[in-house]
Formats: sequence, structure tokens, C-alpha cells
Amino acid sequence: MISSFDTLKKILRRIPGIGYRSAERIALFFLLEGKEYAQELLKSLSHALESIKICSLCGNLSEAELCFLCSDPSRDASTLCIVETIPDLHAIERTGNFRGKYQILNGKLSPIRGIFPKNLPLEHLKKRLDQEDIQEIILALGNDIESEATCQYILKEILQPLGKNTTRIGFGLPSGGGIAMADTDTLHTAILSRRKL
Amino acid sequence: MISSFDTLKKILRRIPGIGYRSAERIALFFLLEGKEYAQELLKSLSHALESIKICSLCGNLSEAELCFLCSDPSRDASTLCIVETIPDLHAIERTGNFRGKYQILNGKLSPIRGIFPKNLPLEHLKKRLDQEDIQEIILALGNDIESEATCQYILKEILQPLGKNTTRIGFGLPSGGGIAMADTDTLHTAILSRRKL
Repeated sequence: MISSFDTLKKILRRIPGIGYRSAERIALFFLLEGKEYAQELLKSLSHALESIKICSLCGNLSEAELCFLCSDPSRDASTLCIVETIPDLHAIERTGNFRGKYQILNGKLSPIRGIFPKNLPLEHLKKRLDQEDIQEIILALGNDIESEATCQYILKEILQPLGKNTTRIGFGLPSGGGIAMADTDTLHTAILSRRKL
Repeated sequence: MISSFDTLKKILRRIPGIGYRSAERIALFFLLEGKEYAQELLKSLSHALESIKICSLCGNLSEAELCFLCSDPSRDASTLCIVETIPDLHAIERTGNFRGKYQILNGKLSPIRGIFPKNLPLEHLKKRLDQEDIQEIILALGNDIESEATCQYILKEILQPLGKNTTRIGFGLPSGGGIAMADTDTLHTAILSRRKL
């Protein structure tokens, strides 16, 4: 059809969550906006790529050695939230309710995909627990088997031996979700996670 | 927070259908993919911007004077489908069921937004109807007041005087949509659009 258009769409489809239609919509927008937008996007992306690195403490994006969260003295340094990815950290930050610090694992245990304990920053985590005055660790990993295994491993190998107070985020019905609309797994977890009133 | 990251997100949010979360997801993907992806995207976009222009007949994207649809002799030249935008044309093409030709209006009548008949390519449409052997015109505009006004104007001012056989695409329940889930407007249109069985 239009080969340069198809190439552009293929490149955009590599973005997670961007399917055929979204890629086409974005590609059309790029084309109809013309060179000015393309140059602005490129300039901004180049600038971000040059200036943004990984925070040496938590693994978040940062323009400095330490990210704005790790270097913020008003954050509660006694609570450490362990997440799998950078987007997970950003999602929790959007709630505006968590005021502690973070540790990003950049993965979860998955023997099938060749991810073992040595591939996660667990030595770094031990060092942090040793050097910082962390009172509570929140395991904010997802509701799937690999996340479960990762939480169990971290709990038993690292946190329990240190006697650390550990919690895991709640699972159950999403906000606004009705019982009849929930899938079986969610409902199963919601029943298991029931709380006394 | 991270200014270069925020700038990048703001630029991405200008894409239609891309909200706060999607912009963040795309920006994070761009950053984590690094320079290689950015260069590939830029190269592909620059190439597309240089090579793609607007088809002089129908208004579609094209690498040549005429787009691949207008220059395809196997398409049914006796049926002309009038759409509002380039993405609309692409959406109809994805169904794979329409084998006729197209005319893109690049807008619809909207006195509020200053779009009048003279702003639409209606003289071009008249010329096409005069020069081409078009037997049926399908008005494939949306289900809103401005689309309705545009269809009525084209019908009464251009197509009826020429005695052209004109149809408008069907409105009603979407595929897979249940009665109880449909909004009031859709259901109202669906009842008005009922067909004898």
C-alpha cells in the first residue's frame, strides 16, 4: 500500500499497549501534523534520553544521581515499597497516598524466562536494609504466580531472617467493580482477602 | 519532578486518544528503549513525511499523485464513498468489504467552528460526479448533528439535483452490543433504523 506508512506503523506497534488501530491513529497524527511536530518530538526525546538516567538507589528515572523521591527529605524513609517496574512506581505515585521510599526490582522471578534471584537487585536490597532505618516493607507486586513466587522468596530469604515487618498490597474487586462483572480469579482473590468488619 | 520527562509526556498527549497514562507509558517505553529506537522512529517518520502527500483525487495519503485506491483498476469506480477524514477511510478499508472509491471531505459543516460549504471540497466533488461514471454515492459520515447537516446539504445541493442514487451507512447497535448496554441515543437510532424482516 504505502510502504513508508506501514514501516512507521510497525515501529509504533512495538510500544506496549499500542495495537493496530492505535498505531495507525498515531502514525496518521504524525503525518498530518507534519515536520514541526516531528522535530519537537525528536528534540524532546533526545533531550530526555541524554539527561535521564537511573537512580542509583531505587532504580527510578532521574536527572541526577538520586531521583527526586530518594533525595526528598520529607518522604518517610522508614517505609520501603518494593515494585517490579518503573511504571509501577509511577502508578503508585499517582495515588498521592504513599509517602515512603521505593525499590524497583526491574523484573520478577521466572525460571521459564531465565530470571533467577541473582538477576534481581537483592544484594542491593539487603545493603539498603542494612544501611537505612527501614521499619516496614510493602511488597507491591502484582496478582500473578511469578509475583507471588518473588514475594515469597524475598520474604523468606531476606525479610524474615532480618525480622522485618512486611506487608503485601491488597487484592480484590477493583474500585467501581461489581461482583457480577468480576472475573473468577479476581473474585476468588477477593474472597480470600476478606476482612473482618 | 523530571522536567525533560514531563515535556516529552506533554508532547505525546497532543496525539488524539492519548491520555495521561498512555503518554506516560509511551514516554517510559521511549526512554527504556533508548537511542536506537528513537533513531529508528525518527528515520521512519522523516521518510514518511518526505514521501507521503495527499492524493489529488480522493484526499487519501499517497506516495504518488494518485493513491493506491484511486489508481487500482480493480476497484468499483461506479460507487463513491464519502467520508469525513483519512482515518475514516482507513477504518472502512479494514472491513475489507467495500470495493468502491472514496472522497474525503476533511471536515464537516459546523457554523460554530467556522466550517461552511465553501470550506469543504464540494466543487471538487461536483467535478468528479461530472467526469466519472458514479452510480451510487454512500454517505459514510458519523451519527452526530454536524454529520447529519453535512449529509443533508450534500444530498439536497449536489446529489439530488443530479438525480444520483444516494445511501447513508446504517446506524444502530454495535456488533456484539446488547440492548441493555446501549446508550439512549444509540437505542433511539437503532429503533428509527429498524428494517422489515
